[in-house]
Amino acid sequence: MPRELAQRLFHELEQLPLIDPHSHINPHAAASKTLADILGYHYYTELAHSAGLPKERIEEPGISPKEKVGRLIEKLGEIDNSVQLSWFLDLAKTFFGFEDDRLTLQNWERLYDASAKKMAEPDWEEQVLKISKLEAVFLTNDFDDPLTGFDTKRYIPCLRTDDLVFHFENPATRERFAKATGITPTSAATIRNGIGKLFSHFKANGVRACAISLPPDFSPAAVSDGPGLDNALAKVLSEQGCADSRRLVSQFVFWTIAQYCAEFKLPFDLMIGVNRKVYPQGVYQGQDLFDHRVSLIQYKELLNAFPQVTFPISVLGQTSNQELVSYAWIFPNVVTNGHWWYSNIPSYIELDTRSRLEAVPRTKQVGYYSDMYKLEFGLPKFRMYRRILAKVLAEDFVIGRNWSEARALELGKTVLRGNVERIFSV
Amino acid sequence: MPRELAQRLFHELEQLPLIDPHSHINPHAAASKTLADILGYHYYTELAHSAGLPKERIEEPGISPKEKVGRLIEKLGEIDNSVQLSWFLDLAKTFFGFEDDRLTLQNWERLYDASAKKMAEPDWEEQVLKISKLEAVFLTNDFDDPLTGFDTKRYIPCLRTDDLVFHFENPATRERFAKATGITPTSAATIRNGIGKLFSHFKANGVRACAISLPPDFSPAAVSDGPGLDNALAKVLSEQGCADSRRLVSQFVFWTIAQYCAEFKLPFDLMIGVNRKVYPQGVYQGQDLFDHRVSLIQYKELLNAFPQVTFPISVLGQTSNQELVSYAWIFPNVVTNGHWWYSNIPSYIELDTRSRLEAVPRTKQVGYYSDMYKLEFGLPKFRMYRRILAKVLAEDFVIGRNWSEARALELGKTVLRGNVERIFSV
Amino acid sequence: MPRELAQRLFHELEQLPLIDPHSHINPHAAASKTLADILGYHYYTELAHSAGLPKERIEEPGISPKEKVGRLIEKLGEIDNSVQLSWFLDLAKTFFGFEDDRLTLQNWERLYDASAKKMAEPDWEEQVLKISKLEAVFLTNDFDDPLTGFDTKRYIPCLRTDDLVFHFENPATRERFAKATGITPTSAATIRNGIGKLFSHFKANGVRACAISLPPDFSPAAVSDGPGLDNALAKVLSEQGCADSRRLVSQFVFWTIAQYCAEFKLPFDLMIGVNRKVYPQGVYQGQDLFDHRVSLIQYKELLNAFPQVTFPISVLGQTSNQELVSYAWIFPNVVTNGHWWYSNIPSYIELDTRSRLEAVPRTKQVGYYSDMYKLEFGLPKFRMYRRILAKVLAEDFVIGRNWSEARALELGKTVLRGNVERIFSV
Repeated sequence: MPRELAQRLFHELEQLPLIDPHSHINPHAAASKTLADILGYHYYTELAHSAGLPKERIEEPGISPKEKVGRLIEKLGEIDNSVQLSWFLDLAKTFFGFEDDRLTLQNWERLYDASAKKMAEPDWEEQVLKISKLEAVFLTNDFDDPLTGFDTKRYIPCLRTDDLVFHFENPATRERFAKATGITPTSAATIRNGIGKLFSHFKANGVRACAISLPPDFSPAAVSDGPGLDNALAKVLSEQGCADSRRLVSQFVFWTIAQYCAEFKLPFDLMIGVNRKVYPQGVYQGQDLFDHRVSLIQYKELLNAFPQVTFPISVLGQTSNQELVSYAWIFPNVVTNGHWWYSNIPSYIELDTRSRLEAVPRTKQVGYYSDMYKLEFGLPKFRMYRRILAKVLAEDFVIGRNWSEARALELGKTVLRGNVERIFSV
Repeated sequence: MPRELAQRLFHELEQLPLIDPHSHINPHAAASKTLADILGYHYYTELAHSAGLPKERIEEPGISPKEKVGRLIEKLGEIDNSVQLSWFLDLAKTFFGFEDDRLTLQNWERLYDASAKKMAEPDWEEQVLKISKLEAVFLTNDFDDPLTGFDTKRYIPCLRTDDLVFHFENPATRERFAKATGITPTSAATIRNGIGKLFSHFKANGVRACAISLPPDFSPAAVSDGPGLDNALAKVLSEQGCADSRRLVSQFVFWTIAQYCAEFKLPFDLMIGVNRKVYPQGVYQGQDLFDHRVSLIQYKELLNAFPQVTFPISVLGQTSNQELVSYAWIFPNVVTNGHWWYSNIPSYIELDTRSRLEAVPRTKQVGYYSDMYKLEFGLPKFRMYRRILAKVLAEDFVIGRNWSEARALELGKTVLRGNVERIFSV
Repeated sequence: MPRELAQRLFHELEQLPLIDPHSHINPHAAASKTLADILGYHYYTELAHSAGLPKERIEEPGISPKEKVGRLIEKLGEIDNSVQLSWFLDLAKTFFGFEDDRLTLQNWERLYDASAKKMAEPDWEEQVLKISKLEAVFLTNDFDDPLTGFDTKRYIPCLRTDDLVFHFENPATRERFAKATGITPTSAATIRNGIGKLFSHFKANGVRACAISLPPDFSPAAVSDGPGLDNALAKVLSEQGCADSRRLVSQFVFWTIAQYCAEFKLPFDLMIGVNRKVYPQGVYQGQDLFDHRVSLIQYKELLNAFPQVTFPISVLGQTSNQELVSYAWIFPNVVTNGHWWYSNIPSYIELDTRSRLEAVPRTKQVGYYSDMYKLEFGLPKFRMYRRILAKVLAEDFVIGRNWSEARALELGKTVLRGNVERIFSV
């Protein structure tokens, strides 16, 4: 019976229209054009590469989309156990009528061609959104994104700030900053003013969140104006930063952004724990990893300093989940946010969902986001989550606590949708 | 069938009279007088605060108990998913005949009044103990507790030593110490002598354990008498401690206490991992959190130096559980002790219980303690544990290893009760 | 049904002949002669010691095997909950016809005598291998093992390198090195040359892997030839090493071994995370523990520098499993390897198996190794793993993803056996 019950709850949750609170969708090309767009998702390229497919074959310049897919297919059999490939099969069935259990050297071309035809339909993007029940999707916008040419109600701007916090030493970042703000970043004051202009621009264009990904060794801290900061900025802006000056500049910019989040009443999504380029020879977007030795205690000063800012927090390491649960249980401004990247696999989602539903106020949990680059992934990724959520609701609440199915469903809908609307003011 | 089996085991475990090996009960006011005593438990105030109830509303001086409860009720709907609120509903049903599924703005007053009447009965404390099958409850006594005016067979003294180890710099601590021992703490010798007097006093009054909570960065170490220690003590006792002198003094006092535990044959409960006042604006008792980056390797010197002292160890972080299991599997003097605070939620209790029953000698596991401040919580907290224990016994032992139900039950009783008696010589 | 399904898969997996990719078998005395060989496994001595049996009673010189077993039996009742004792009961039933549910003071002698008779049969080793379906077993060979006098197809050499990397300061190691290689270790060049000779010797004798266990604080790094290294070597080889010089020498030797693994095309098994002699008063082999604060980020330089070397990695801490999964998902040369020591208990194996099957290419997972010292343990330890693997295949793949049983079984066989053959070129 638990299985049937979970199935019923799952089917009910499947009916709920969604707002996806974090993705990497390009609003000018939200849906895929070929299977290469879909199988080009870093999960497939990195797993195929991990299984032995040379990077050169995957990223060879000038190969056609079909050729690229054909090369990936060679190795997909070796990752057919992965939940990531199960996402692909799910979307292939749902969107393209794929009926086989496996993707093979024999059947992939038929799928390629059938899907290409489907994706060429003029309203493909609309179809995907409708079938996926996606009403709106948050973006990940560069700080200098003009935010024009798309419907910001459907594709909701989110100001991504990694470049500002960590890459002011890069001349390209400084140029983009100057161009976007009209202000050359030469000092604490100019940087502060420029960032203010970015916030105004985003605010005028319907931004609903600010976001950043952070390495395990980063600790936000207030930085006083004065010679120490000026000196560090001078070094970094002249590309002569040392570890200390870089850290100080990052802390200064980060804190400045948090101040603007307060001023502009924006939630600040913290995605904590990624080490970039751990495997520099990896495929595109398949080079980053992590160090589980990070603690939310590093965010103590920040969380205390900005009680008026909501911090939806994602952690990369599953071993950080209990801290996240505990900090969200104590700090009013901490919200648990989805299941990120290396933690976005069913066994970890289940344990993390369970603990969050046991100990974090129901109104402070954003259940899931897709993190997708192409729209077609919303359906299978959210579906994976809904299946797990339904299982937890069935076992822990309906059976474990004698809740009615209706009540359990209400809880599920709150974390799947209601909280997204409220927390991000959508 | 596994569910029915688990149910049967659960009902058998429910019959077992308990000795609760760790609580914060005030033996002079063990039971509650109003729902404000019950809902004033920090879990409810901190979760309601986390969900948005201002601290000022919760802690406003002079409000009546009923007013306080009424204010908390406003936010309890937002934490109705929490296991902590399920404890409340369980005790409200058991003790006060509450029959609804939820606590609401509509029904709380009836419950308030009915429960007030019940709690006013002259033998309420006795009733709670009897219904909860609690034969004895360990206390958490300040070092200067006179230990008079209560039955130390029912409310068993436990010498809590946080103040001694960490707060000698505080003049109030030194005054309390001088008053309780007749010795002014001015040197290693006077402190050592005074602590000896405290142990004698506690021993004369039926103490059964010494206990302390420890921050993640603490590492016990033997400290030699000599100018280094004298110098550190001089600084700390004159309130001019630096990090180093404070650490040295804490290590000295801690080690001294461990020596007395050996001399007085007392188990020394170590509760490892709490960072105090991480969120200083939080409600009373809702300000502490943790850093999961702590290791039992920090206790290597201690565990080797005191083979004759039993250390029942609790860890705050669930990610420390495997170390606890492994250290208890290797060190004869390490005992696993309950499920503490942020780890005291079903998903973590289940995983931790499972691993402990798989790899730690059955005689070295203290299954659970209530950690309660008011007697009414013993029942629902132990019941939560019993439910999980019954599930693990059913699945892993009766089904997984073909044990008879009687044998599984015997194992359950050993960790629930038998070990408490033996380890703490009750 | 899930249970029946899991049972069916388990019975199918039981039919599969195995190659055990890591053990401590002595090929000259692979099987046991008495129960003392079996119950002398450190799991029993350390758990009995942990439960209170004095080391002196366990390790008293000159006691007979039967006396030793009799003493251990006294305490085994207190560890009858442990999965380790369940291994013993399983093998006693399978190999010696033991029919009781518990081992007691009453029935152990009968078992002792019956088993002694069985083990005295001239083909006992053959019988155990056959019943256990073990076709080949990897060894753990000292670097100076002559590798003669046994069938290296059945007992496959594996070059264990802990002594080389960590113990050159020990004169005994240097003597063994000189004797085995004909080269006195006096410099980087002589050590490098000598290690080359060891690799040649092992290669000539069918070695299939190199292996090492590593403490949590070790980070491999390339070490340049030059005065820095020479100076460090001079200190260490004259037994005057400091922490820095020891670390540099260890890094140099480790890196040299990795270079030879590349040259000789050998996988390099890394067993990460053990602290040696944490409890020096513990029984033989029952003194080591760990610090969960270790990260695979410490291996970044190594994994990048040797793309041509396969690194089957075991982690001692369960909290390191997600990093292992993630590094194996990204790095082509990282393979997940079994469930090691303190992580080798069902609750952790299940969670770890689940996450690995969800996110690591199927071809990059070595499901299990026995780590045994005596052949009789292969059967119950692999059986424990098969039971868990069957459960995960049933729940997550057949039920969760609608796979056929045949397909799930194929996945199971790949991680149990196929990958061992391919990865280690057996």
